[in-house]
Amino acid sequence: MKLYDYSRSSAAYRVRIALNLKGLAYDSIPISLLDSAQLGEDYRALNPTGLVPSLAIDDQGRGEGIITQSLAIIEYLDECYPESPLLPAAPLARARTRALALQVACDIHPLNNLRVLKYLTGELGLGEEQKNSWYHHWLKQGLGPLEQQLSGSDTPFSCGDTPGLADICLVPQLYNARRFELDLTPYPRLTAIEQSCNRLEAFRLAHPDRQPAQHG
Amino acid sequence: MKLYDYSRSSAAYRVRIALNLKGLAYDSIPISLLDSAQLGEDYRALNPTGLVPSLAIDDQGRGEGIITQSLAIIEYLDECYPESPLLPAAPLARARTRALALQVACDIHPLNNLRVLKYLTGELGLGEEQKNSWYHHWLKQGLGPLEQQLSGSDTPFSCGDTPGLADICLVPQLYNARRFELDLTPYPRLTAIEQSCNRLEAFRLAHPDRQPAQHG
Repeated sequence: MKLYDYSRSSAAYRVRIALNLKGLAYDSIPISLLDSAQLGEDYRALNPTGLVPSLAIDDQGRGEGIITQSLAIIEYLDECYPESPLLPAAPLARARTRALALQVACDIHPLNNLRVLKYLTGELGLGEEQKNSWYHHWLKQGLGPLEQQLSGSDTPFSCGDTPGLADICLVPQLYNARRFELDLTPYPRLTAIEQSCNRLEAFRLAHPDRQPAQHG
Repeated sequence: MKLYDYSRSSAAYRVRIALNLKGLAYDSIPISLLDSAQLGEDYRALNPTGLVPSLAIDDQGRGEGIITQSLAIIEYLDECYPESPLLPAAPLARARTRALALQVACDIHPLNNLRVLKYLTGELGLGEEQKNSWYHHWLKQGLGPLEQQLSGSDTPFSCGDTPGLADICLVPQLYNARRFELDLTPYPRLTAIEQSCNRLEAFRLAHPDRQPAQHG
């Protein structure tokens, strides 16, 4: 498998964690968002959205092709490699785990990714302060309910004793929150889950700082 | 089942289509976004995110509880009610369908929903013209690649001869695009798929204009 990857893309970070949790080896192909490589012809021929990550599958049993969208990639991995499941078994529990993941993937991350921040400071001519207020606003809107929902339990991970899809989305989001200097003291349950995750090698090896130098 | 619903919420619209495609009866509980009912204490006790929709399940076989996030709800319905599947059977095909759905649910919709538009005109003090440019920008960023990806086939629906998860996300997004007067002529494949969908009663009955009057 080849992962079209960028160290600080939090959607790519999610997929790296999932691949590591499944114990799957992959080649990381860097697509530098800082150089806008994701918008180049070569990459768009693979993934017309020009978004990172994409996973290239070449498996005689399962066909070959490109999978895009981090959550679609992770669901694919969970279906094809059922060991170390990333979702619980029961439908209602699966729905709850997916909902927590989607709260990050739909309600926080899309508002704060690089292309949106560029639009704010470019087309809309906003200053750094307004950009940072925007960033913090959507983070707080999203992390507040997550903290409340997850405070109902004290398991090491979001949905029990093993890491799964919700944790895979949470950890890169908290990494971004720190980069943008959000005060995380109102979220003790989320940071406790983050600590449990970051004790695992699967999470540590996926961290942006641990990616190959050419990721920039 | 009870759907906490709002006629013009496109995430709720998705779930209404899915329930109809599965042939499942439900009670629609209106949560008026225009009155900010989704932010009231009663609704937040059910769904701390204050976002619509939520589905209340009360099924002795499958447990009871609230499911939030439209895609988590739809995956739940597809797992529990496997007739008229909303995803293909093979993992790679499932991944492609999910990716198309996520392109709408993560890359377009979150940038253009009501709370974001309110932030643009409220906190950021933008005018109508800048708000509409923002809206159209993210629509075009998302619909362009979708048109390209889906033009590789001429099946009635996005992923074959039966409607599924990608169509369920596409149709409400095109409804929104029309409301905001985006020119849809560059997207003939998408509007052809929309037409196929809207020939089906499951889609027609889910349309915002067909919801009970108290939805406002």
